Amino acid sequence: MKKISRRSFIKTGLTAIAATAAASPILTACDSIANINRKTSLGSGKIKLSYRCVDLQQRHTFTISGFSRDFTPNIQVRLEYDGVVAYGEGGLPPYMIGQTKETASEFMSKINLDQFSSPFMVDDILRYVDSIAPGMSCAKSAFDIALHDLIGKLLNVPCHRLFGYNPEKTPCTSYTIGIDTEEMVRKKTEEAAAYKILKVKLGIDEKTDKGLIKAVRSVSDKPIIIDANQGWKDKHLALDMIHWLKEQGVQMVEQPMPKTVFDDMAWVTAHSPLPTFADESCQRLVDVPKLHGVFTGINIKLIKCTGLHEARQMIATAEALGMKVMIGCTGESSCAISAAAQVSPRTNWADLDGALLITNDMFDGVKFVDGKITLNDRPGIGAELIGEW
Amino acid sequence: MKKISRRSFIKTGLTAIAATAAASPILTACDSIANINRKTSLGSGKIKLSYRCVDLQQRHTFTISGFSRDFTPNIQVRLEYDGVVAYGEGGLPPYMIGQTKETASEFMSKINLDQFSSPFMVDDILRYVDSIAPGMSCAKSAFDIALHDLIGKLLNVPCHRLFGYNPEKTPCTSYTIGIDTEEMVRKKTEEAAAYKILKVKLGIDEKTDKGLIKAVRSVSDKPIIIDANQGWKDKHLALDMIHWLKEQGVQMVEQPMPKTVFDDMAWVTAHSPLPTFADESCQRLVDVPKLHGVFTGINIKLIKCTGLHEARQMIATAEALGMKVMIGCTGESSCAISAAAQVSPRTNWADLDGALLITNDMFDGVKFVDGKITLNDRPGIGAELIGEW
Repeated sequence: MKKISRRSFIKTGLTAIAATAAASPILTACDSIANINRKTSLGSGKIKLSYRCVDLQQRHTFTISGFSRDFTPNIQVRLEYDGVVAYGEGGLPPYMIGQTKETASEFMSKINLDQFSSPFMVDDILRYVDSIAPGMSCAKSAFDIALHDLIGKLLNVPCHRLFGYNPEKTPCTSYTIGIDTEEMVRKKTEEAAAYKILKVKLGIDEKTDKGLIKAVRSVSDKPIIIDANQGWKDKHLALDMIHWLKEQGVQMVEQPMPKTVFDDMAWVTAHSPLPTFADESCQRLVDVPKLHGVFTGINIKLIKCTGLHEARQMIATAEALGMKVMIGCTGESSCAISAAAQVSPRTNWADLDGALLITNDMFDGVKFVDGKITLNDRPGIGAELIGEW
Repeated sequence: MKKISRRSFIKTGLTAIAATAAASPILTACDSIANINRKTSLGSGKIKLSYRCVDLQQRHTFTISGFSRDFTPNIQVRLEYDGVVAYGEGGLPPYMIGQTKETASEFMSKINLDQFSSPFMVDDILRYVDSIAPGMSCAKSAFDIALHDLIGKLLNVPCHRLFGYNPEKTPCTSYTIGIDTEEMVRKKTEEAAAYKILKVKLGIDEKTDKGLIKAVRSVSDKPIIIDANQGWKDKHLALDMIHWLKEQGVQMVEQPMPKTVFDDMAWVTAHSPLPTFADESCQRLVDVPKLHGVFTGINIKLIKCTGLHEARQMIATAEALGMKVMIGCTGESSCAISAAAQVSPRTNWADLDGALLITNDMFDGVKFVDGKITLNDRPGIGAELIGEW
C-alpha cells in the first residue's frame, strides 16, 4: 500500500470518526493518522477483519422528505485472507434508525470469523453475520461487500463476471437533486450536466413539489425520475401528482406513499400511468413477494438488504414475480457504489450517484461515462483504496 | 482424453442414439465408434459446442404413476473454450412431453455461440438459449450444466464453492422404489440398504398404494418420502392417504394431486400433517410464487427449470416465500447428478439417485457415503467423463 503523508491524507478531505471502543480482541493503534481510530479483529483462522468509521461530506446540504444532512457517516470494512486485502462499506444515513457509527461498530466487533476456515463459505458466513443481531443492515452490507470483494480477488475476476452479468448492460445512473430552494434546484440541475437522468426528491406538498419540478424544467428537459420518500399521504393526491408528473416528462415514481399503506398504494399502481417503485416499503428479501401487485418494481439498496448476496436473491425473486428492479444507494464512497454497480446490469434503473455527491471519496472505482455506469475489469468490486487504511 | 477400444467402450454399456441430422454448421464424423453420431457446432468465436444422445439403461423397469420405461434417453453436451473441456447432460424422460432425442438434438443444433466471445456472460448466453424456442427445458439444462462446468473449470473451483455453499451441508439422497409387484418392491427395498431414506412412488389407488407401503415396511423401517405423481384425484382421498402415511413413518409427500388443482391442493396442505412438495406443479422460476400457500415446498429438477442458473433463482424465491426446497432428478448419469448435487447444500431434501438406478453410467462424479451426497473438490460440476466423447 502506498504510504501517504498526513498532509496529503488530510488533503483528500477524509474525515474519519473514532468508532466506539468495543469488545474487539485486538486494537491496532493508528499513530500516523490521529483522526482515525481503527480496530482489528484477528481470528485464529485466516480471515482477518478490521473496520473504521468515516464521515462523507455531502457536496450540498442534502434534504429529502423528512431528513436533512451535511454529511453521511459510513462504516468501512477491511478483510484480509491469504495476503489478499478486500474492502466493503455501508452508509449510515439518518433514516436508517438506530444504525449509527457507534451501533455499527459495536455490531462489527461481535463478528468472530474464527469458525470459518474459508471465505468461500459465503452462505454460511453471511447467515452467521445476519444472525448476530436483528437489523444492522448497513454494517452487514459493509461486511458482505468486503467478502464479495475478497472472493473476486481470490479468484481474480470482477464480481460482475462471477455473477455472470454482461458489463455492457449497465444502465445510466440518475443524478439526485435534493429538496432545496428553487434557485438551488436550478443550480444543482446545471451541475448534473454530465448525467442523462435526473432524480428529483419530492413529497413536501403539491405546491412545493410542482415548483421544484418547474425549477428543474426551467433549465433541463432531461428524463426525470421522482422519489417522494412516502411524502404523499393521500392516494388521490398521489395519483393526481403522478398524472401531472407524467406530463412533465417524468418516467417513474419511487415510494409515493407511506411505506405500510399497501392497499392504497396498490390502487395507485393499478391506476398509475407511470411505474411505481418501492423503496422504504422494500427492505429485505422477504419483503419482495408482499410488494407484488402493490408496486411495479423494487428499489434495492445494499444498506437495506444486507448486501450483494441478498440483493441477487431479491433480483431473482423480482424476476419470478415479473417486477422491475432499481438499484439505489446513499451517501457512500466509490467502495459501496462500485459494489452496487456490480449487479446493475440486471437492473432497470440505477441511482448510484452517492460518490458523486460527496467531496471526500477515498476509493477509486466505477466511473460514469456520459452518465452510464462503466465497470472496470479489476477483480472483486473494482474499487481501490486511495491513501491508507 | 484416454483412447478406449470399441470393445471396452461397448462394455461400459453405453447405448448411444444417432441424433437427428440438423442444421449444424459442421458435422464431425465418428468413425471409430459407429454407434454414436455426434455433431459439432463450431462458432467463429471461442466457445465450441458439441452434443450427443445416449440411452441410460434402468436397473429395473421403472414405473411411476402414468409411465413405465426400461431406459431413459439423455442428451449430453460438450463445451470447449480455451483448451478447457466441460460437460452437461439432461435426461429426456417420457413425461417431458415433446422432449425427445430428436427434438433435443434439433434444439441444440440451433444454438449459435458466435455472438459470445466469453463464456462468463452466463446471463446473456442462457437468456439467448432460452429464447431460441419455448419448452425444451431438458436440452437447455444440459447446456446450462456444461456452461457452469466450464466456468468452474476456467476459475479452477467447484461450482458449489462459486455458489458460496458449504459442501458439508449436503442432505442424504433418497433412493427411489418405483411402482412394482409387492415382491419386487421388497427386493428393491433390500437393494437400497446403503441409503437412509426411501422414496416410494404411489398414486395408483388406495389399496395398491397401501400394499406397496406395507411391502416396504415388511423389510425396512427407514424414513420414507412419497411421490404420488398427481395420482390422487380427490382432496379427501389425498388427505386421508397422507394421514395414514404419517402413521407409517412417512415424512413428506410430493405432488399428491393433479398439477393444476391448486385450490384443493391448498386445502390438503393446510390440513396435512406432513409437508407437501410440488413437482409437476413446479416447472420454472415463474411458477414458484404461484405455489405459495398451495404446497409447503418445491421440487426443483434441472431438466424442468433449464438448469443451475434458474435453479438458484428458484431457491432464492422459495426462501423469500418461506418455502422448502427439494432437488430431484430423472434417469441421468453422474454428469447431471453431480451438477444437481452442487446446489444440494441449499436444499432440505434431495432425490439424486438417478445414476444409482442405471447400469451404464459414463461419468464419475458425486458419491454417496452412507447415503449422504458427498461432493468432491474437482473444478466445475465435479464429474469426469469415463471413456471417449
